[in-house]
Amino acid sequence: MKLITAFAFCLVTVQAFAPKQHQSRHVGSAVRVTSEEIVANTLTDQQPRWLIEDFESGNRDMIKKMEVMLRQAQLDITKAIAEIDGGATFQEDAWERETGGGGKSMVLKDGKVWEKAGVNLSVVHGTMPQVALHAATERGNLAGKDDKVPFAACGLSCVMHPRNPHCPTMHFNYRIFQTSDNWWFGGGTDITPSYIDVDDMKHFHGTLKEVCDRHDPEYYPKFKKWADEYFLIPHRGERRGLGGIFFDDLNDRDPEEIFEFCKDAVNNVVAAYGPIIEKHKNDKFTNEQKRWQLLRRGRYAEFNLVYDRGTIFGLKTGGRTESILMSLPETARWEYDHHPRPGSREADFLDACKTPRNWV
Amino acid sequence: MKLITAFAFCLVTVQAFAPKQHQSRHVGSAVRVTSEEIVANTLTDQQPRWLIEDFESGNRDMIKKMEVMLRQAQLDITKAIAEIDGGATFQEDAWERETGGGGKSMVLKDGKVWEKAGVNLSVVHGTMPQVALHAATERGNLAGKDDKVPFAACGLSCVMHPRNPHCPTMHFNYRIFQTSDNWWFGGGTDITPSYIDVDDMKHFHGTLKEVCDRHDPEYYPKFKKWADEYFLIPHRGERRGLGGIFFDDLNDRDPEEIFEFCKDAVNNVVAAYGPIIEKHKNDKFTNEQKRWQLLRRGRYAEFNLVYDRGTIFGLKTGGRTESILMSLPETARWEYDHHPRPGSREADFLDACKTPRNWV
Repeated sequence: MKLITAFAFCLVTVQAFAPKQHQSRHVGSAVRVTSEEIVANTLTDQQPRWLIEDFESGNRDMIKKMEVMLRQAQLDITKAIAEIDGGATFQEDAWERETGGGGKSMVLKDGKVWEKAGVNLSVVHGTMPQVALHAATERGNLAGKDDKVPFAACGLSCVMHPRNPHCPTMHFNYRIFQTSDNWWFGGGTDITPSYIDVDDMKHFHGTLKEVCDRHDPEYYPKFKKWADEYFLIPHRGERRGLGGIFFDDLNDRDPEEIFEFCKDAVNNVVAAYGPIIEKHKNDKFTNEQKRWQLLRRGRYAEFNLVYDRGTIFGLKTGGRTESILMSLPETARWEYDHHPRPGSREADFLDACKTPRNWV
Repeated sequence: MKLITAFAFCLVTVQAFAPKQHQSRHVGSAVRVTSEEIVANTLTDQQPRWLIEDFESGNRDMIKKMEVMLRQAQLDITKAIAEIDGGATFQEDAWERETGGGGKSMVLKDGKVWEKAGVNLSVVHGTMPQVALHAATERGNLAGKDDKVPFAACGLSCVMHPRNPHCPTMHFNYRIFQTSDNWWFGGGTDITPSYIDVDDMKHFHGTLKEVCDRHDPEYYPKFKKWADEYFLIPHRGERRGLGGIFFDDLNDRDPEEIFEFCKDAVNNVVAAYGPIIEKHKNDKFTNEQKRWQLLRRGRYAEFNLVYDRGTIFGLKTGGRTESILMSLPETARWEYDHHPRPGSREADFLDACKTPRNWV
């Protein structure tokens, strides 16, 4: 429970602590800068933009290293996805916080393949109340709940919602989190189709397993199970999708090793997901199949708004709403008491959401 | 805060304690009965169906009286709405709980005017943990949080989502709640258009004010303000709609007087809402106006799933999901960082959601 909680928080931690651009209650003073300016300051010389010199404790060098790696991954992934889409580019929004850190959202709208896709980088540091740390990770000590805890975090999170009901939605998130006396990595990549294509699932889960196995043969079975647990929508008795890998609180070995695992995982997102989209992006579909996809997107919104503690935490602690809710589908649907016809492909999909299957 | 919390809980209390029909974790053993059977047993002789003979404390007669009144209101309102729709009827789902009480949902799908409309009656009693009562109403005593508190509740709740973006969504809820040592009424009627029609708002709020004024001239200003506070979406800094009236924990006078006020309010829902729909149901609209309506429905879903404590409480304590989430729109939309054009009708509407206006 502790681990799941910790993950949930970290999922959008970075957005939660980013300044709000359009609202009056700022977490910190926000200065909007052009993304060119930031990119020029970072990627040309491979130096992190948001230096954390004033964050005294923890492993600052690892956070900087994570930023450089994730910033490059953000560019690589958005470039590859824009090429597959063939009709849209990613719009960039970058921020800095005067109190330390910043973020860059890259969002694709109205694509040919994707109706909405976003990849958010955030690198933030500062102090958070013990009570917030407790709510988020169960690491805080509620006895001193008004004390401020120094923290630093760097993460890249992404959700992509395609138009075609035969093209799955994909989500990933990789991050490092530090407090004055601890550090840990968290992350995962998971898929949410509307229909089962066994070959697709073998490819997706297989790619994730290969990545995991290169670092620890225990990772895939453990993290696959964790994803099946985390993405449960309890009031439905079903997961939002067909899972993937999921981990948090990972600090049981040299941070360099975990960094290499995260790097390998994030750099294989396109390899795991891209071919599935290429295969299905021109599939024919019926109105009924589109309707089913929208009903599943209703479930996606339910999970994110009711159970994703990172989303809830972010929204309730004054995070940047647009970055947090970028994860919601462009369109969603709810019908009263809808049940797929027994024996249908929709019923088979629902069954796999209720009872997770092994794909590799 | 206490009052708002209490309201929120009660909003879907009745669903929260209704048995689940399709899931394995039952609150109580559910027996599905035909609605004809229930109606035959109740409305023909004006007797409540779900007798609360085993609920020893509180004012049982008032709960029975409330049930008879709300059951009749459910029939009257659905009949009037089906007539305005002209193309759909309400589907009935009725339940009983072996442990006491039951419910009846009446849902309209795929109407000519409404894409989704539901009116839920619930009459439930039993015991709930102190901790649940505390979470719901702040009346519970956490020191004895494992103690069971006897309670009884009867309520009618409704949400109606029309198709035409010039036709507003409407919600109401009226209920009585009892524990062993207390009783209170709660309720309200509120409207969620996508565009401002000042005459419509004068009519809607004016009808509510007339109802309120017949019972207490302090009701309307107090309950109008309460609605503006309750329906705030804090992370957006805007309300979900243009308000109405809203109250909870009302037990400051003879229960007969409050009953008469609730009866008057619920019996004027159609008078407040119906003419607005009749006026606009054939209005022409553009794709852009439909899109704006769907974006506002995204806000509606956000409010209900993130902030409506009754919804959250119901979902997390094993309520009947379909009855609780009947309130969600059939379709909703989220776009990244959408802002209406300054000076547009959409911007004017958003302004009224950010800074509530007085309509009468």
